Amino acid sequence: MAINVIAVWDSFAALLSKISSYQEAVALMAWDLRTGAPRKGAAPRSETIGLLSTEAFKLQTSAEMGGYLSQLLEDDAFKQLSDTQQRIVKDAKEEYDRSVKIPEEKYKEYVELTANSETLWEDFKESGDFVGFEPYLTKIVAKLQEFIDYWGVKDTRYDTLLNMYEPGLTVEKVDQVFGQLRDRLVPVVTAISEHGHKPDTEFLHNIFPKEQQEKVSLFLLEQIGYDFEAGRVDESMHPFQTTLNQGDARITTHYIEDDVVDALFSSLHEGGHALYEQNVSDELARTPLGQGTSMGIHESQSRFWENMIGRSRPFWERYYGDLQKHFPEQLNEVPLDQFFKAINAVKNSLIRIQSDELTYNLHIIIRYEIEKMIFNEGLPVSELPRVWNEKYQAYLGITPPNDGVGVLQDVHWSAGLFGYFPSYALGNMYSAQFANTMMKELPEFEKWVGEGNFAPIREWLIDKIYKYGKSRTPSELIEGVTGEPLNPTYLADYLEQKYKGIYGL
Amino acid sequence: MAINVIAVWDSFAALLSKISSYQEAVALMAWDLRTGAPRKGAAPRSETIGLLSTEAFKLQTSAEMGGYLSQLLEDDAFKQLSDTQQRIVKDAKEEYDRSVKIPEEKYKEYVELTANSETLWEDFKESGDFVGFEPYLTKIVAKLQEFIDYWGVKDTRYDTLLNMYEPGLTVEKVDQVFGQLRDRLVPVVTAISEHGHKPDTEFLHNIFPKEQQEKVSLFLLEQIGYDFEAGRVDESMHPFQTTLNQGDARITTHYIEDDVVDALFSSLHEGGHALYEQNVSDELARTPLGQGTSMGIHESQSRFWENMIGRSRPFWERYYGDLQKHFPEQLNEVPLDQFFKAINAVKNSLIRIQSDELTYNLHIIIRYEIEKMIFNEGLPVSELPRVWNEKYQAYLGITPPNDGVGVLQDVHWSAGLFGYFPSYALGNMYSAQFANTMMKELPEFEKWVGEGNFAPIREWLIDKIYKYGKSRTPSELIEGVTGEPLNPTYLADYLEQKYKGIYGL
Repeated sequence: MAINVIAVWDSFAALLSKISSYQEAVALMAWDLRTGAPRKGAAPRSETIGLLSTEAFKLQTSAEMGGYLSQLLEDDAFKQLSDTQQRIVKDAKEEYDRSVKIPEEKYKEYVELTANSETLWEDFKESGDFVGFEPYLTKIVAKLQEFIDYWGVKDTRYDTLLNMYEPGLTVEKVDQVFGQLRDRLVPVVTAISEHGHKPDTEFLHNIFPKEQQEKVSLFLLEQIGYDFEAGRVDESMHPFQTTLNQGDARITTHYIEDDVVDALFSSLHEGGHALYEQNVSDELARTPLGQGTSMGIHESQSRFWENMIGRSRPFWERYYGDLQKHFPEQLNEVPLDQFFKAINAVKNSLIRIQSDELTYNLHIIIRYEIEKMIFNEGLPVSELPRVWNEKYQAYLGITPPNDGVGVLQDVHWSAGLFGYFPSYALGNMYSAQFANTMMKELPEFEKWVGEGNFAPIREWLIDKIYKYGKSRTPSELIEGVTGEPLNPTYLADYLEQKYKGIYGL
Repeated sequence: MAINVIAVWDSFAALLSKISSYQEAVALMAWDLRTGAPRKGAAPRSETIGLLSTEAFKLQTSAEMGGYLSQLLEDDAFKQLSDTQQRIVKDAKEEYDRSVKIPEEKYKEYVELTANSETLWEDFKESGDFVGFEPYLTKIVAKLQEFIDYWGVKDTRYDTLLNMYEPGLTVEKVDQVFGQLRDRLVPVVTAISEHGHKPDTEFLHNIFPKEQQEKVSLFLLEQIGYDFEAGRVDESMHPFQTTLNQGDARITTHYIEDDVVDALFSSLHEGGHALYEQNVSDELARTPLGQGTSMGIHESQSRFWENMIGRSRPFWERYYGDLQKHFPEQLNEVPLDQFFKAINAVKNSLIRIQSDELTYNLHIIIRYEIEKMIFNEGLPVSELPRVWNEKYQAYLGITPPNDGVGVLQDVHWSAGLFGYFPSYALGNMYSAQFANTMMKELPEFEKWVGEGNFAPIREWLIDKIYKYGKSRTPSELIEGVTGEPLNPTYLADYLEQKYKGIYGL
């Protein structure tokens, strides 16, 4: 049967646009909850978020959507679509196939369960009460197990979750790259411990007034090219980036008065996510492709700006003077070299988000191994604190004094985000691999960073990565840009070289 | 046919709750646009607001809604509902009957037209360019004329619009009360002009740093009982109050450095709206009755707190010392009496929102007369500047030097809000009439205001007005509380007495 492709496409695009409207509303409501919505409005707000998320879900799994997709996927019709249109259809089809398997009622229950657990988690974390939190986490795991059955298992059960955040990735591949990475990093960590030298980091923890921290953070965001007309910066308990629409990529940060660098690096980190989102091509707006392509690639950009730029020596050669001007009493007596070593000090610590570039990856590997045990080996939720503590002892030589700084430290699991953590270490690997190519193609990279001249670096990233949004898969991007698949060697080389230099190993 | 009333009610309530979810999302998106959403996100945001408003409209006019209403309105079923449930059904039925007459496509066009015009209006107002704005306004009037035809005309065409904001009100009644009010107020205005005495108001316009203004505003809001756990205070170009859900009634204000009182009174004004919304009974949440009953009654509460409390002598006997503490250099030399007279100075001015309590009503009467001319006498939009200027000359003895401070000064018409302005003067009248009864029932009123003891006043308002939300009509409220219908005498008496005292007439 011949169909009018243009008319079907237009209806399909209108439906996608409507879905993105729901997503914008839900994202704004969530942003608002975390940036200052009043306490008494939170419970009704969760109900509203649940209702509208479910409406979006219904549209995504509607007969209307199914109809457009099957019409547009017919050979004759599909051939008439542009490359971008074809990719939109394929992405929507994948999402449709995944979602349509979940009964609407189950989805709604899940959204409400996780919204509620995420709110409760804050208190349980605060009091370190894993036993109180256990029933919620148990329910979430059970729901996800049920969803995995609906979605179907290709390799292992945990592969199904991994694929939600990093399409195409397998447990087999992660085992391999994490293994290689661990084997390269552990000797460096050990060498640093044995070396005995501890950089002085105490001066970072004097009192640095919030107002000045805010000024420096905004200044640095401006320097790297964050577009303040296409976003805004607020405060929240935990920093995050959220995209509301093609002209609105917001970030939050959190100022800690006795830590001068925490807010700076979290601003650069979230700023990196936002640079990606702000530079996705406009033609992808209001489609499922109008966003970063995967959590891993996204994280490669946040960590590129945070670490490879923000924790580099040339960066602070350019900006340390500015920082001193904002904190003359606190920093005028501290030479650049001392500052640089302090912000790169390696320390086996309990908290992932406060860890250094080197040990960070071990925190992720621990979470990855535990998640695999839950979903592939049936580890009961009640066992998590024990396994967590054993692994921290084994990998980092420390044991959390309570679950608040141990197994309860991250919000992710309370929000149902199992399979997500690996993205962080993948991001580090992607980041180093991209940077390796970038430095070959832009031999003046270091000089530019030292001058605060980020425009050519940003342009390179826009041209190679950002503009494509989700219209390229992670593997298309990494292979297209660097000429080879994900390879942990670049991150290992970068970290080894950086830390050998700093610690004089 | 017997129906299961409880089951139908539950489905109906779930549908109402869903509609209120859309309304919450749309209200938050609008709030966000006005309190700091980035410029480049505004256009897509308008599209999103249009789409989700239309979805809510579709639910309100759905066959599902029509079905529940007709089932619940059947005699047998209706009798089984509680009084509150019956009122919810009747209100939803009215809304349904009104909305179902408007074709969905027309509604969507209208939402997009007004959203766009509202944004453009800011620039046209700034440049005083009425000619540029005229085509938009012409379209809006044409759309409303079309809607009036859909809705049907009972008395005059303008009655149909009036009724949107003040159910039950007629042009005949407004003509009468506005006429009486004008006849009482004009002699007072004239007497003040002829009296020649001009209170010194210059000291109000020194520089009053924003930070201090903010502190005083928040302090006064706390004093009158604004619940900061059920709302938040932000800045916007034009102050407003918006209710997101039963636990979230937000207000905004706008600080002007060379005007110490503007933000204070706008905070009290919006705070008054919010006190109403924060104290609607919880059982009405997520239904169409969970809000103030009409624009006029709402305005009676904002203006009660702004004027009858905030511009009263006892109020400043209690708080002037606090104000001076925040602005010692600016106010320590200014005695209370001088301050009190200055904040109540009468001046024939161009701008409604900056006008005093007395002439304010004349600004409203001008707008009312013009709106009637447009809808009942076919006055073309192109004639508005001429008519506007003539009326300002006739009523207030001044002519705007440009349309930016004349016919373009208010946002309302750009948003399609014709029939809304009368609410402001109605609010003043309701307010004085309620206050008259309150003072009889609470003989210590003045003493309490002088002590900053607002709890018994607030309790009285909650008990007589606020808790009912929209479950009582404006006339039920005014007659129930004061024993008679709307009567402009109370406002005229109050203003006459107040200004005769201040000006020693």
